[in-house]
Amino acid sequence: MDDRALLDVIRPVCGADTCSDDCAIIRLPCGTLVTSTDMLHMQSDFPEGMTNWQIGWMSVAVTISDIAAMGAEPIQIVLAIGLDDQNRLSEIVKGAYACCDAYGVTYAGGDLDAHSELTIVSTGIGIIRDGEPVRRRGAMPGDLICVTGTLGRAILGLFGDHRFWKDLCEPQPRVREGRAARLAGATAMMDISDGLAISLYDIAAESHVGMEISAECIPLPKDTDQNKAREAALYGGGDFELLFFIPEEKFKDLPIPVTRIGRVTAQQDILMDGTVLQKKGYLHHW
Amino acid sequence: MDDRALLDVIRPVCGADTCSDDCAIIRLPCGTLVTSTDMLHMQSDFPEGMTNWQIGWMSVAVTISDIAAMGAEPIQIVLAIGLDDQNRLSEIVKGAYACCDAYGVTYAGGDLDAHSELTIVSTGIGIIRDGEPVRRRGAMPGDLICVTGTLGRAILGLFGDHRFWKDLCEPQPRVREGRAARLAGATAMMDISDGLAISLYDIAAESHVGMEISAECIPLPKDTDQNKAREAALYGGGDFELLFFIPEEKFKDLPIPVTRIGRVTAQQDILMDGTVLQKKGYLHHW
Repeated sequence: MDDRALLDVIRPVCGADTCSDDCAIIRLPCGTLVTSTDMLHMQSDFPEGMTNWQIGWMSVAVTISDIAAMGAEPIQIVLAIGLDDQNRLSEIVKGAYACCDAYGVTYAGGDLDAHSELTIVSTGIGIIRDGEPVRRRGAMPGDLICVTGTLGRAILGLFGDHRFWKDLCEPQPRVREGRAARLAGATAMMDISDGLAISLYDIAAESHVGMEISAECIPLPKDTDQNKAREAALYGGGDFELLFFIPEEKFKDLPIPVTRIGRVTAQQDILMDGTVLQKKGYLHHW
Repeated sequence: MDDRALLDVIRPVCGADTCSDDCAIIRLPCGTLVTSTDMLHMQSDFPEGMTNWQIGWMSVAVTISDIAAMGAEPIQIVLAIGLDDQNRLSEIVKGAYACCDAYGVTYAGGDLDAHSELTIVSTGIGIIRDGEPVRRRGAMPGDLICVTGTLGRAILGLFGDHRFWKDLCEPQPRVREGRAARLAGATAMMDISDGLAISLYDIAAESHVGMEISAECIPLPKDTDQNKAREAALYGGGDFELLFFIPEEKFKDLPIPVTRIGRVTAQQDILMDGTVLQKKGYLHHW
């Protein structure tokens, strides 16, 4: 049973709407708030060799990325830190603060606890003052499938390519790009931190559509084994880039560099070069 | 080193303002948001015999209590759940939902993860549309010291008095009382989940004042050993009642039953019946 299957336990209690997006949504008279929470811990989320400063940075970055994926502006982060060793705290907090500062976000404290395994839960609030959040459920047949940045770097870094170590440990959430995609008319969006393939499946399920992508269109880092890089991009995870969907006529309005990798279809298959794409990615397993 | 001492590591990075209250504060044109996050886990927070449903309830209740302590109305909870056993999830989520529902709060999902020890981080958002949050720093010499409810029940329940087991496992945060105290003119407030004594010290430190309370004024449950009950109230924790401070002339405006237990002083000692009160309570120790 993986975490996507466990969501099926929560849905009947909370309502399906609660489990469908990168963030939850709160409507207020002066704007729409989006909130996201992420639990990270030593064994499954922080690669060996990562510094405490980078652990702090990453804990904040994953949550800012969820907020970016709604097209929102992040405004506040709180961290609950379960410490296995109190001496780690100062550097973790400095890294968290640096990531908040880089994105103009207030780091507003949180909770401290002792824990056998370092565990950090980052919760963030974002706001949209000028429109609606972009959800996972709006992709329409004919929409272009787009991604920001180059993919696969995090996993290449994890498996020894030192050029990408920093990409793995200090991800740069795409806040500016998320907002630009929303304003240009993106119909659906999420981040691909669990890998491109599983993310395409997630959007397809929420939007009741299919996808057709082209392997050679996936933007990969240069000077790497392209087959390895493509595997990492599709199934690896750790790239905090955005995947979004936009009608073709609006694509030209995008003020940011993005890559078209395919098109949404009415037929509900997820295809790459005409063949069904494997449904796998980074999943927590029990 | 305890968690109050660890806050001293965070203060220089985040700014002192960040670590001073039950909640962080965000100002928006349509109101003031308050946010709180709490990490709970099996060993230190959930007594043996507590059901999974009660674990879910309590995880939400502690955060709603922090929001109540600012005089705010809770609106949304997200939970990050690190599961040691997937079979617990359904009942935990049902308990969490029940607590949200009892307080008119939206349970908006969150994050799921596998963990060697059950770990739940609850993050809540509250709003104040008609005034300012009540902080820890506003108590003034002469203010009355007040508490809601009867104290000591949680610890009496933990140590075998079955009448109070439900008080321990299903705390009822004082949202209505917190709002009423704010509207009546409370100058400072917090919940006493770490015990009354340490909470008096916390408010005194933030407000730069002293306190004088009377042992016999502390409201305790009837038909119990009053000495044991008083010890539990002062130093035990687990009672999700509110401690607040209010000028004497405004006390009569309170529309809720509360108990006066003493008065704020200019001299910075914390006294009970003229003797310095021990500075101890429920603290996480490393």
